[in-house]
Amino acid sequence: MAGAESPNQSSEIRKDGINDRWVIFSPARSRRPSDFKSKSNPNPNNQSECPFCKGHEHECAPEIFRIPADSTSDWRIRVIQNLYPALNRDLHFQNRNHEGSSHGDVSVSGFGFHDVVIESPVHSVHLIDLSPAEVGDVLLAFKARIDQLRMNDSIKYVQVFKNHGASAGASMSHSHSQMIALPIVPTTVSARLNSMKEYYEQTGNCSLCDIRVDDLIIHDSTHFKSVVPFAATFPFEIWIIPRDHSTYFHDLDSEKAVDLGGLLKFMLLKMSSQLNNPPFNFMIHTSPFQVDPSYLPCCHWFLQIVPQLSGVGGFELGTGCYINPVFPEDAAKILREVKVPDQK
Amino acid sequence: MAGAESPNQSSEIRKDGINDRWVIFSPARSRRPSDFKSKSNPNPNNQSECPFCKGHEHECAPEIFRIPADSTSDWRIRVIQNLYPALNRDLHFQNRNHEGSSHGDVSVSGFGFHDVVIESPVHSVHLIDLSPAEVGDVLLAFKARIDQLRMNDSIKYVQVFKNHGASAGASMSHSHSQMIALPIVPTTVSARLNSMKEYYEQTGNCSLCDIRVDDLIIHDSTHFKSVVPFAATFPFEIWIIPRDHSTYFHDLDSEKAVDLGGLLKFMLLKMSSQLNNPPFNFMIHTSPFQVDPSYLPCCHWFLQIVPQLSGVGGFELGTGCYINPVFPEDAAKILREVKVPDQK
Repeated sequence: MAGAESPNQSSEIRKDGINDRWVIFSPARSRRPSDFKSKSNPNPNNQSECPFCKGHEHECAPEIFRIPADSTSDWRIRVIQNLYPALNRDLHFQNRNHEGSSHGDVSVSGFGFHDVVIESPVHSVHLIDLSPAEVGDVLLAFKARIDQLRMNDSIKYVQVFKNHGASAGASMSHSHSQMIALPIVPTTVSARLNSMKEYYEQTGNCSLCDIRVDDLIIHDSTHFKSVVPFAATFPFEIWIIPRDHSTYFHDLDSEKAVDLGGLLKFMLLKMSSQLNNPPFNFMIHTSPFQVDPSYLPCCHWFLQIVPQLSGVGGFELGTGCYINPVFPEDAAKILREVKVPDQK
Repeated sequence: MAGAESPNQSSEIRKDGINDRWVIFSPARSRRPSDFKSKSNPNPNNQSECPFCKGHEHECAPEIFRIPADSTSDWRIRVIQNLYPALNRDLHFQNRNHEGSSHGDVSVSGFGFHDVVIESPVHSVHLIDLSPAEVGDVLLAFKARIDQLRMNDSIKYVQVFKNHGASAGASMSHSHSQMIALPIVPTTVSARLNSMKEYYEQTGNCSLCDIRVDDLIIHDSTHFKSVVPFAATFPFEIWIIPRDHSTYFHDLDSEKAVDLGGLLKFMLLKMSSQLNNPPFNFMIHTSPFQVDPSYLPCCHWFLQIVPQLSGVGGFELGTGCYINPVFPEDAAKILREVKVPDQK
């Protein structure tokens, strides 16, 4: 590994004020930022064996809805149950007691929902191949399913996420996203809320509304901005943030969905072009449903894109503190400058 | 994936009371617990090119000390600087200001120490090949280096960790561990301390002294117990915990080091035998150096072993909540029963 030619030659430790964690920026460990390329190609599985393809609907777990709703065979998007769900929609939510357990042992039944959003009927079509309006339709399918899930009083939070490529956790190569509806609020979500509330109490502003550092911005659309965060956990991580204060992803309307669809597609194209089509994840970080109203002015949803360029080792597992070899300013500059075909 | 034949058929969500996070146990997604095997073999690099081997000392970054101290060529353990350190020992610790940054942007210079402990002069010898006393010597080398590092007032925490196998983050196959000395306390460490203090204030007991659930225990040695934690984040994760209350790893004495060395070796042998020699990490979770004295009765160090059996996806990245396909009681039973050669 050669020393980096970044203007930031020495290491720096930054606090991620949104997620309340530290990140070590260590350019000396890495190649030049522009030399980062993925080595693992997301491996396709055989189309003839894919249950997500049109014509194989009977091989899937039950469907929840499809778009268009009245289509028989000409669907564009299907929302279905996960055949191997992490949580069980048929359980009742209840606390469990463990005999002889320590005082601190808390557990609840594994109630929840685990759904899959099939983003296209065609095996080889990925999000970057869709039009902004079509990506927007996928986002509106997330919203429609969240609107159903949040009617259940036992559901506290819905995590929307996409795994693209085997090393990013995808077991199917057919383009899809997942949604897990939880009866608990994950502690990292609580930590983010508390951290954003603390910033609000100190400054009177929402911390995501306040991001305005020019050299971290990649691109602005009508309603959204895409940035590399000040203390990005991963190299070339991207956040897409609503420009106006917005607490819940599910408040997305049709116009904003097309705008967000275009920006998401644009960022995925830039990332894929620069990093050689890497495996990646994206996550929608929204707010818990039954949040105290005092949190509303400081909670602001965003979409996080993480290319999978390296694994996690014992230091990250032990401390939760990540080592990022690329300074966010350098990643943002590279992503601003990388050329991709014109978007419609 | 077939349904599991575990007595625990349905999913369950458990709170990890030590680390204050939730874990989803989802046996329906997985093979039977006893069928877990690693598919990725830790890949050896070529011995002739290995700078950690005896005779190649000049290819390494500067040595800090060796054991025995007066040996010229017959060393058994070497502690050296990392050639590609994440942090820089020559920087001064200082806060940094970023022009035009938001109020919440905090950063400090990348001051710190990043060292490597070479555990044997011989390329093919791993921890499981050493005697309990020899593993104890490696543990005492960690202690000796921590005792040096904690003399520096700017160092707040030392993370000792081992990456074994490429997919566990190891770039060298020659047996080694690493130590990173940090000028900050990682937020997951603070969260653990606060969580343990809360338990102490509620019960009057240390939460790790309080672990006494028989079906989670794997093995007891004279001074340590090995368990699968109640809300294990990863399948077949193991914790080795001092039986007597102990705040700091660096208080380890020579007798306990041999005892711990034997138990660590025993657990690594059981894990390797059951899971087909998986890549793994271990981490020593000790306490920050300048901790408020009120934390001492509730802080208890432990060693965590994590076999790397699956990657991390968008759900885990988004929520910090992990999905574990193996119930801790099942993993503990399997690890109790797996036979390994008699230990000296």
